[in-house]
Amino acid sequence: MQTQPLRIDGVRLLRNLFDLARVGKTPDGTNRIAYSDADREGRSLAMELMAAAGLDIRVDTAANIIGRRVGTDPTLPAIVIGSHIDSVPNGGDYDGPVGSLSGIEVAHTLHEHGYTTRHPFEVVLFQNEEGGLFGSRLVSGAFEDRELDLVSNSGKTIREGITFLHGDPDRLDEAWRTRADVSAYLELHVEQGAVLEQANASIGIVEGIVGIGCWKVVVDGAANHAGTTPMTQRRDALLAAARFVEAVNRIVTAEPGHHVGTVGCLEAFPGAPNVIPGRVEACLELRDLDWQHIVALYERIARESGRIGNENQTSFTFKKTVANQPVPTDPRIRSMIAAAAQELGLTHRSLPSGAGHDAQEMARIAPVGMIFVPSAGGISHSPREFSRPEDIERGANVLLGTLLRLDS
Amino acid sequence: MQTQPLRIDGVRLLRNLFDLARVGKTPDGTNRIAYSDADREGRSLAMELMAAAGLDIRVDTAANIIGRRVGTDPTLPAIVIGSHIDSVPNGGDYDGPVGSLSGIEVAHTLHEHGYTTRHPFEVVLFQNEEGGLFGSRLVSGAFEDRELDLVSNSGKTIREGITFLHGDPDRLDEAWRTRADVSAYLELHVEQGAVLEQANASIGIVEGIVGIGCWKVVVDGAANHAGTTPMTQRRDALLAAARFVEAVNRIVTAEPGHHVGTVGCLEAFPGAPNVIPGRVEACLELRDLDWQHIVALYERIARESGRIGNENQTSFTFKKTVANQPVPTDPRIRSMIAAAAQELGLTHRSLPSGAGHDAQEMARIAPVGMIFVPSAGGISHSPREFSRPEDIERGANVLLGTLLRLDS
Repeated sequence: MQTQPLRIDGVRLLRNLFDLARVGKTPDGTNRIAYSDADREGRSLAMELMAAAGLDIRVDTAANIIGRRVGTDPTLPAIVIGSHIDSVPNGGDYDGPVGSLSGIEVAHTLHEHGYTTRHPFEVVLFQNEEGGLFGSRLVSGAFEDRELDLVSNSGKTIREGITFLHGDPDRLDEAWRTRADVSAYLELHVEQGAVLEQANASIGIVEGIVGIGCWKVVVDGAANHAGTTPMTQRRDALLAAARFVEAVNRIVTAEPGHHVGTVGCLEAFPGAPNVIPGRVEACLELRDLDWQHIVALYERIARESGRIGNENQTSFTFKKTVANQPVPTDPRIRSMIAAAAQELGLTHRSLPSGAGHDAQEMARIAPVGMIFVPSAGGISHSPREFSRPEDIERGANVLLGTLLRLDS
Repeated sequence: MQTQPLRIDGVRLLRNLFDLARVGKTPDGTNRIAYSDADREGRSLAMELMAAAGLDIRVDTAANIIGRRVGTDPTLPAIVIGSHIDSVPNGGDYDGPVGSLSGIEVAHTLHEHGYTTRHPFEVVLFQNEEGGLFGSRLVSGAFEDRELDLVSNSGKTIREGITFLHGDPDRLDEAWRTRADVSAYLELHVEQGAVLEQANASIGIVEGIVGIGCWKVVVDGAANHAGTTPMTQRRDALLAAARFVEAVNRIVTAEPGHHVGTVGCLEAFPGAPNVIPGRVEACLELRDLDWQHIVALYERIARESGRIGNENQTSFTFKKTVANQPVPTDPRIRSMIAAAAQELGLTHRSLPSGAGHDAQEMARIAPVGMIFVPSAGGISHSPREFSRPEDIERGANVLLGTLLRLDS
């Protein structure tokens, strides 16, 4: 017997997105910063929506919200759909909520159709994603106790924030999870880039979350009087740094691929109009799905910097500050996402995630899959971020389709 | 009858330099900052040396120290030799004292040989040169009353500093001088660059004090996520700023001449490793003896910046912050300096002064001449600044020879 295929309720999903968007809205953007009053208010709303979706709700000791629906086979580990609802300062309405509310909508759809999966099914809203994947790192075990005293954007320490959200910082170990109780992890998220939009694709199948190498770069020259030092006698650290910035761009763009390289910070010292800069401090960030490629790019940049320094007797030093390995997604789940998109007649495209996500932490304990929906103009972490309603609805249906494939 | 030509006493000059160098000496360099206790102590020592040199000493209402020797023709205006003894924070022993003590040594030489000039002769030690030519601007009339409330490096306001040095801030107009009482102004100074050293010349004849054009430069692009924004979709303000820094260097060095161009400050915003800079603030400074050339260089740089901005959809804005016109020295005095050097058998070379000096203020009321002596390695405003004893002695003798030529 052919049954009608399950589809999510797009109107309900968008109404819920709209309701959550009002929480923490300010003239400068959405301020639902982790551990703020608005964060707590948003979580209350999300829990109401979870309850309406028929989920059993608990808050773990790490202050993550977990909504669970039993499966027909209680011996199986859970399929987890996760995301977050906290925002960056002056953020937008889509980064986090699209995935969170789509997960709840999937649960609601199963609930109203009386469809029970074989596996237990969970929707998890991780706390403080934007501050540094705190909720998911507490689940994966990657969190370190000394981080409890870090001060978050809310002004509260992580410890205070966990207490504020009804977790228990003294029993954080109880939030750890393992392969034994998570069979797979899915996350839907807005792309935060413009690759899908440019490719005119509705669905992005995330190949993995890129690795990040970050270096502090110091250029040493000689500070000197800008009026009395002829051009030929200068050891201008800023001139060398400028050539370095240009070289990073040239080396990174010289070969095709999704890798990116950024000099995000740069400052010249002493920083007076009439003094030739004797020192520049900058940072270099390289991202790619292939860690060896990051290393190769870095080595090319460092070699070129040495050459640049020789030109005007300046010297470069690089100090590695971040070395996050890339996290590939599960190939089997990727093909399920593709199949779910194809069934819905949607154009899709594979791409890396250039940003970090809770999925990278869950990948430590389970196979993960990530679905992207387009971000208009690639705008992210801004009140101007936007994803089209039809794309969000499509993404949620692909999420549902992938879940059902994983379950069968 | 052939008389022995007058020569200064090099040993006495160097001993005086050594004595003054002890005043304000700290482990980090000389700290004889204007209006400090060390400044006042240095001034006391200088006044003792002036008295020993037979000068009549007064402190004007601007707190400049004036030592005067009468001439044979009381109807003539004075020939003035000036410099300063205040230092920058953590400065050295030569910038200021070489000229000040050479002036006193010239007076001492005249005194001990019983040589009386036709013109009255003065040695003036201007107060707070390093803070912004305050003493000489009070004499030339360029000082503005609102500057009295500026806070100097000593922590005292200019008003408090003038009182501290026994001037009278309520009677500053009395310090003004005019062409009627200054016939010419001479200043000996360390070069603060390495042009003389590289040219192997003992004496620099200053062609003029360069003009300075300074602009605040803002580059506007679009801040965006460094992980999710492909290289081809970036409006990276720092990449454009780097090309600007390189272009300034290329345009300034493309033609021969003494002009210089410096980007002394540059900072990228928001300045995070994972955010593409959306804005850069920098400053551009151009110096040359020819103001029209400064303008032409600026126009070339602004045009090239527009082209650079077009490359990656960023925009440049320039706002002029300083426009100091060049101050030429007097051609007649320049040739007297050359003749004095030649008589002593010294190699000399003409060059602009890239730094500002009290002479540029005195040029408003009298013809001026400036003599440079070499700075080892071109090091300036540093405890490592150094000028060789033989060069200082040569400079002081050229100063004396020029004075006598001016007088005759």
